Amino acid sequence: MSQNVLVVHGGGPTAVINASLYGVIEEAKRNPEVGKVYGAIGGTGAIFSETFIDLTSFDDEKLKLLLHTPASAIGSSRYPLYEKDYEKMVDIFKKHDIKYVLLNGGNGTMDACGHIYEVCKDQDIKVVGIPKTIDNDIAMTDHSPGYGSAARFIAASTQEVGEDVKSLPIHVCIMEAMGRNAGWLTGSTALSQGEDCEGPDLIYLPELPFDLQLFGEKIRQLLQEKTSIVVAVSEGIRTADGTYVCELGNSIDFVDAFGHKQLQGTAAYLAGFLGAEIGCKTRSVEFSTLQRSASHMASRVDIEEAFMVGGAAVKAADEGYNGNMVVIDRVSDDPYMSSAGIYDVHRIANEEKLVPREWVNKEGNYVTKDFIDYVKPLIQGDYQPIMVNGLPRHLVLDMKKK
Amino acid sequence: MSQNVLVVHGGGPTAVINASLYGVIEEAKRNPEVGKVYGAIGGTGAIFSETFIDLTSFDDEKLKLLLHTPASAIGSSRYPLYEKDYEKMVDIFKKHDIKYVLLNGGNGTMDACGHIYEVCKDQDIKVVGIPKTIDNDIAMTDHSPGYGSAARFIAASTQEVGEDVKSLPIHVCIMEAMGRNAGWLTGSTALSQGEDCEGPDLIYLPELPFDLQLFGEKIRQLLQEKTSIVVAVSEGIRTADGTYVCELGNSIDFVDAFGHKQLQGTAAYLAGFLGAEIGCKTRSVEFSTLQRSASHMASRVDIEEAFMVGGAAVKAADEGYNGNMVVIDRVSDDPYMSSAGIYDVHRIANEEKLVPREWVNKEGNYVTKDFIDYVKPLIQGDYQPIMVNGLPRHLVLDMKKK
Repeated sequence: MSQNVLVVHGGGPTAVINASLYGVIEEAKRNPEVGKVYGAIGGTGAIFSETFIDLTSFDDEKLKLLLHTPASAIGSSRYPLYEKDYEKMVDIFKKHDIKYVLLNGGNGTMDACGHIYEVCKDQDIKVVGIPKTIDNDIAMTDHSPGYGSAARFIAASTQEVGEDVKSLPIHVCIMEAMGRNAGWLTGSTALSQGEDCEGPDLIYLPELPFDLQLFGEKIRQLLQEKTSIVVAVSEGIRTADGTYVCELGNSIDFVDAFGHKQLQGTAAYLAGFLGAEIGCKTRSVEFSTLQRSASHMASRVDIEEAFMVGGAAVKAADEGYNGNMVVIDRVSDDPYMSSAGIYDVHRIANEEKLVPREWVNKEGNYVTKDFIDYVKPLIQGDYQPIMVNGLPRHLVLDMKKK
Repeated sequence: MSQNVLVVHGGGPTAVINASLYGVIEEAKRNPEVGKVYGAIGGTGAIFSETFIDLTSFDDEKLKLLLHTPASAIGSSRYPLYEKDYEKMVDIFKKHDIKYVLLNGGNGTMDACGHIYEVCKDQDIKVVGIPKTIDNDIAMTDHSPGYGSAARFIAASTQEVGEDVKSLPIHVCIMEAMGRNAGWLTGSTALSQGEDCEGPDLIYLPELPFDLQLFGEKIRQLLQEKTSIVVAVSEGIRTADGTYVCELGNSIDFVDAFGHKQLQGTAAYLAGFLGAEIGCKTRSVEFSTLQRSASHMASRVDIEEAFMVGGAAVKAADEGYNGNMVVIDRVSDDPYMSSAGIYDVHRIANEEKLVPREWVNKEGNYVTKDFIDYVKPLIQGDYQPIMVNGLPRHLVLDMKKK
């Protein structure tokens, strides 16, 4: 009887989630106990509609492109699950001889992972989580696949945009990185600092309250010293009363002539604020979806670790682990080395890893050397895209049902 | 007596303007008639303050990094010039034995170039323009350096973001490229089309009036057929009465609680519009400053041509051309080949090259194969960045006065 694997992706994609998928497939192929690897097309919802694709049916030359392919090759979802949903899953897993259920995602997905484990634990079905988030806010793992590549794109873009800002007469550029509660991505702008780049002048993380007036004063002060200023902010920065800065503009009647509510980002709001308060020229740059999908700038370390945790999840299930998530343990800093570990998924789902206060300077407007030392190894190395007609080649699976 | 060269950069930088600067320096070094190459630090304003840097004083190993360095290594400006400004320049050029004045920029800079030629033409000072713009709107040249690299970044990002959009449940993603009047950059999103990518579903250029209601209907219709939709728009699209779409949101009392006027982009406006009109989930992505500064994605063709026109400007001045701009002539399409030509700068300054109507489909919402065939050769080839600590190394000149 075959033992099949089901892989399910949850939440927003990263540049390397497909590398983890490839890790699962390769490890499964090496394991004589394992039959097929199914991908749930479109996240958890696909479990109920039994929309599975047999990933073992593709030839390896093609599958290897997963190492270069951004987004989720098997789709993803943000579909919320309920208790009765979980119960329905067991019969479906049995019907398809699925013995290993691997959920790749962030904190929300790990919560689902814990629930699926509860309904499967007496059924000889192993449930294992694979970490993934550009936000790097998953607890118990040194860091999460997806973060290093996003940090690398952000650091390189900070360099490039920062030089552009310096090229032109006086102005302030506000750059916005993702991170509702965790400032890991925003802090990674500091990696741009080096011989050829000053890095941002100010960095504001969502872990600390943001003071609009203090910010204005700081900019005024910097404008006395230099002609161009680069500021990095998290999308999630909030004022002391908990209001998101991006809502300060949206809180009033922010509708157009047709009555449509208009949206605005944090950086755009702050650019408008500075323009009005100080009268300086401003510009805003949102790293937007680019930061999580720029696989052409993925770090080799990140791709390799994503691959590693995918394979480790299959091994863990094979060794009998159940209700666990694979974690990355940092073995050494210099040379940087890591290995895969394993941790109870229930502990992970209820925590959120934030940037520790001591990794932010006293003024609360920059990250410390410890922060930089932590991130730097994760952005190292290239994995050259395969270029066709001047553009990176990706894998697009023919999404027909298995 | 030495014959010195002065290089002045004008307007917004590109990923390859420094490659043209390197072309100037290398050609000047080969020419025994030429003494020093001065860079005007910070654009035209530097002429009056005589803030020049001697670029021939740097060693070539270092200068070669200019091929990889985004933004303008000698700064740039948007400083408007007046008749009396031009007259003052002659004495300054003479004082520094400047015989060749090379202005690198777009249409505005070529206008200045024409004026400087008028005051210099009887003074044995040659004035030659070097084209540069990501917008590709300079007339008389097949295309302009800077465009190919920006188009490549945009095409690759459209692929990456497009796959991200497809990974998640139903929604519409609006991507915004630069281009106030010319849709060359926005149209380049179509290059993402290929075996592994569908490309955008709709493309709207500023050359044609934008109809908000028709747009809404088109999206409704597409949502019947597919779950994820990608739309590319130029920042400069306008309704039939000439109102910029980005002003539709800003035209009303668009101020926050503190009375600050708030800014908004075209894509953000359209995302809000669709959300309100159709109730679909939307997302907006602005390529922002990234599109012109992403030197890590610069195309080899673009870098080489930028280098070529820089050198050609020195040669042209040396051969006695005056009041001209170097142009790129397309010699053949397959294999793609180009060469440097020369054209009267006065003709160039007063024109603006727009996307021809016949390169847009009948419905006005996509570019044709002719458009794609025109751009495709310009995004080809890599010029691998030199990576240090996981990030591209750039050149930062020590901006001390000569």
